[in-house]
Amino acid sequence: MKSDVEIARAAQLRPIAEIAKTLGIAEEHIEPYGRYKAKLTPEALAGAEKNGKLILVTAINPTPAGEGKTTTSVGLADALHQQGKKTVVALREPSLGPCFGMKGGAAGGGYAQVVPMEDINLHFTGDFHAITTAHNLLAALIDNHIFQGNALDLDVNRIVWKRVLDINDRALRHVVTGLGGRVHGIPRESGFDITVASEMMAILCLADGLADMKRRLGRILIGWTRGGRPVHADELGATGALTLLFKDAIKPNLVQTIEGTPALIHGGPFANIAHGCSSVMGTKYALKCADYVVTEAGFGADLGAEKFFDIKCRLAGLAPDAVVIVATVRALKMNGGVPKDVLGTENLDALKKGAANLEKHIENIGKFGLPAVVAVNVFPTDTEAELSLLEELCVRLGAKCVRSEVWAKGGAGGLALADAVEEAIAKPSNFHPIYDEKKSIAEKIETIAREIYGADGADFTPEAKKQLAEMETLGMTETPVCMAKTQYSFSDNPALLGRPTGFRITVRELRASCGAGFVVALTGSVLTMPGLPKQPAAMGMDITEDGVVMGLF
Amino acid sequence: MKSDVEIARAAQLRPIAEIAKTLGIAEEHIEPYGRYKAKLTPEALAGAEKNGKLILVTAINPTPAGEGKTTTSVGLADALHQQGKKTVVALREPSLGPCFGMKGGAAGGGYAQVVPMEDINLHFTGDFHAITTAHNLLAALIDNHIFQGNALDLDVNRIVWKRVLDINDRALRHVVTGLGGRVHGIPRESGFDITVASEMMAILCLADGLADMKRRLGRILIGWTRGGRPVHADELGATGALTLLFKDAIKPNLVQTIEGTPALIHGGPFANIAHGCSSVMGTKYALKCADYVVTEAGFGADLGAEKFFDIKCRLAGLAPDAVVIVATVRALKMNGGVPKDVLGTENLDALKKGAANLEKHIENIGKFGLPAVVAVNVFPTDTEAELSLLEELCVRLGAKCVRSEVWAKGGAGGLALADAVEEAIAKPSNFHPIYDEKKSIAEKIETIAREIYGADGADFTPEAKKQLAEMETLGMTETPVCMAKTQYSFSDNPALLGRPTGFRITVRELRASCGAGFVVALTGSVLTMPGLPKQPAAMGMDITEDGVVMGLF
Repeated sequence: MKSDVEIARAAQLRPIAEIAKTLGIAEEHIEPYGRYKAKLTPEALAGAEKNGKLILVTAINPTPAGEGKTTTSVGLADALHQQGKKTVVALREPSLGPCFGMKGGAAGGGYAQVVPMEDINLHFTGDFHAITTAHNLLAALIDNHIFQGNALDLDVNRIVWKRVLDINDRALRHVVTGLGGRVHGIPRESGFDITVASEMMAILCLADGLADMKRRLGRILIGWTRGGRPVHADELGATGALTLLFKDAIKPNLVQTIEGTPALIHGGPFANIAHGCSSVMGTKYALKCADYVVTEAGFGADLGAEKFFDIKCRLAGLAPDAVVIVATVRALKMNGGVPKDVLGTENLDALKKGAANLEKHIENIGKFGLPAVVAVNVFPTDTEAELSLLEELCVRLGAKCVRSEVWAKGGAGGLALADAVEEAIAKPSNFHPIYDEKKSIAEKIETIAREIYGADGADFTPEAKKQLAEMETLGMTETPVCMAKTQYSFSDNPALLGRPTGFRITVRELRASCGAGFVVALTGSVLTMPGLPKQPAAMGMDITEDGVVMGLF
Repeated sequence: MKSDVEIARAAQLRPIAEIAKTLGIAEEHIEPYGRYKAKLTPEALAGAEKNGKLILVTAINPTPAGEGKTTTSVGLADALHQQGKKTVVALREPSLGPCFGMKGGAAGGGYAQVVPMEDINLHFTGDFHAITTAHNLLAALIDNHIFQGNALDLDVNRIVWKRVLDINDRALRHVVTGLGGRVHGIPRESGFDITVASEMMAILCLADGLADMKRRLGRILIGWTRGGRPVHADELGATGALTLLFKDAIKPNLVQTIEGTPALIHGGPFANIAHGCSSVMGTKYALKCADYVVTEAGFGADLGAEKFFDIKCRLAGLAPDAVVIVATVRALKMNGGVPKDVLGTENLDALKKGAANLEKHIENIGKFGLPAVVAVNVFPTDTEAELSLLEELCVRLGAKCVRSEVWAKGGAGGLALADAVEEAIAKPSNFHPIYDEKKSIAEKIETIAREIYGADGADFTPEAKKQLAEMETLGMTETPVCMAKTQYSFSDNPALLGRPTGFRITVRELRASCGAGFVVALTGSVLTMPGLPKQPAAMGMDITEDGVVMGLF
């Protein structure tokens, strides 16, 4: 079996202007980055007229066994493309940190990949570097403001804006800066997050243009004065400079799948402390150019799909048409209690038990007024009995279940899935968010906990209750809520697999993402700066003198 | 008077493929980044056959009055271009940190600029971001190695590899990382430099291709074991991944001046702890495509030109043909003792006195076997008497002196300079470095101090003497020396202007840049992470909804 990077290297790429042309985008409206990547200028949209169908690809709760959401998204788009439909797959940009840590790449897999995968997985068109730079410029301006006299009377113990790097580096989670004496700044505790956790990433993905970007950047909460007044980025006088750093990053990136289907890859916010979806601008662009737009959301449907609907679609005025839930026999068996090392053995009981997880996700998609199709990402170890049982169970749950073999076969392995998705789209849908944003923060969280997670309710720690009041001060009450919860369970306990019941959600902290426009509710400790493993993926990477890349997958 | 960004915006840019074509570079050998920037692939050189003349633009010791080295380089290239000569200007990439701090941009000025200046001054083609990423990946791998058991027995108190950001941020100069408890790494003292101070920047600028880059990255000294053995980057097993991050950054960038002269802008190492010249690959590329290549070196000729000759030209096998020394009446008057606020008043005595600084630089260029032309960057406040006196003085010093008005007039203001440079090139030259690299480190420093600085000799602190021995352990004795000295004086005391005599140089510290291939001799405290001023340039920057940029100059 070939590695992902070998398959990608063997692909015959078409010049990016040709790909743009298939979408009706003229060459003068693209800005090439090398031969096979381009940024799309806002002017390109002027001629575009379509109003495509929006398909969300989400998944059951993830397990270490893997689901294949990006791979399924790419393969489904390739299948629709093979069927002659004008299709775009709209994805998130991979983060460099995990690429060198555990993942080694995140551009699909097997014969369902976006290319040039080496570029997409590395610096791509520099969007994340723009975020890193702008984020850290704001941090430097804050420390400089304090150093130069602190006219705003900022409380050094209440600066909430940290720094970021697109590297997995646990040693930067907690640092003390400003050491070394009087001329080197004011000592204070701080830390670094990974770039995808920057609020500026969420802002980039929710903004609808440069003017909106500037407005949002200015609203970022940077800290509090000693008198307890919130201070926003605008007060430092550099919102224009921050916006300037995004002048190119704001433009969506066009690439292609190895089958030549156009792909718009833009932005990639964390799916815990942010909403985990690619940019609104990319999605809107795609909908204007294509009949079918396939996009994905982070983690399982309880987090990713909920935020896609309640944050991205709500704020951007988007109405999705169908939802694909990716599941694997292996992951469902894990949800049914089977340990990872014996997943290769047939186990119908565990599959039946674990399918309760899938059941709840199917129900949830229905609560948003949307039809769901289950895509079973087939593994060689899956038995026919297991696959048939899963199909039977889905029928009983009222969802069509289709086998997907896009990893091994590309678009040809996703034709049945494409048919099922088209059927689903043809059904009447009635999309609506799960909560009214005018309700109180506590009520919104309670609704998500009960309706989506199946909890008996939500509790707030005394600290979180204090912060509920703070949200009033900040004018952040009538905004969507962004839940930061473990991705492994419907509950806030990663050990409760399947479809847990009889539990409550505990909100331990609330954070205001004033620029992005949502309140983050943290239900557990969320790590926003990953660490490297004992054997980082970086150790297996190389490039020859002739530029042949190895170790990305 | 129009601002730089206004002049740049008004320029009629030609598509970058057209600019490449004027150099005989086919479209398939360029990788466009937008419409007006491109990277040049190594294959482009296969067809190139020229062996152009190399002209270095350097300057007297800089003063706060400003000299205009980049502006003169661009204007001289434009003048040669106007005269029908196939010309390339090879420059350094600007750093984002100073751009948002004091400088507000560094792409020439007035009518002698490289464009698109907004892009060149901001993220450009992402080269610096690649350095930031690779540098910090190596740092993360070091801390991870220690955290995961420290098999190499690294001494946490002797890790010499810090982290970098392309931001002016004094609060990051001295930090403690790894705080927060056992799972968040091992606490230790460290710090951040600005990206241009990264040894990887020097490596990028001295490497002759990917294979050489990999070799040099692997040789980087990261620290010492508890037993006192030096540890190099290769021992962490990720040199391939580090090299991979440079797969695009290693390719020189092609842009144009506002008059359409091709410009190769690539790399930009610090001129104190590194050698301060644009990349060897960019220069070699330019020499293969053009009859005249105009390039610049950092700071004054005592630092920039010396390192250009003794480090860059020596290591790359380049032989320059002529040298332009940029001077201004204002800066020479400052060197003659006039304070900044009365520079607008005619003062022939001060000019005569300050010209001693220029005299020594002219002598020095001769010591390298090269002809020197003095370019007087004319300011509106210069009087005819002052300009005539300066011309007279230069004739007595054996150097042609020409007035340059490229800032106000573009290439047309540099035609006399171009003529003088061609005359100089026509003279026989006999380029040679100032010292034999086989000599001891101490002897090499002594030679630079006596011959170039005019010192009575060099002294070493006890600490530096200890480090001289360390260089033996590292096998770093037969390498060039990179002097880190104040740019304001020939001596190591910034207050000694003009042409000081009767002083000695004190070397306080030696550092091994094993990857770059030189030993850095520090003669004073060198700040490798700038701070922001009270009113950062960032505060004046903005971008409109339509993408019009303001505040870069």
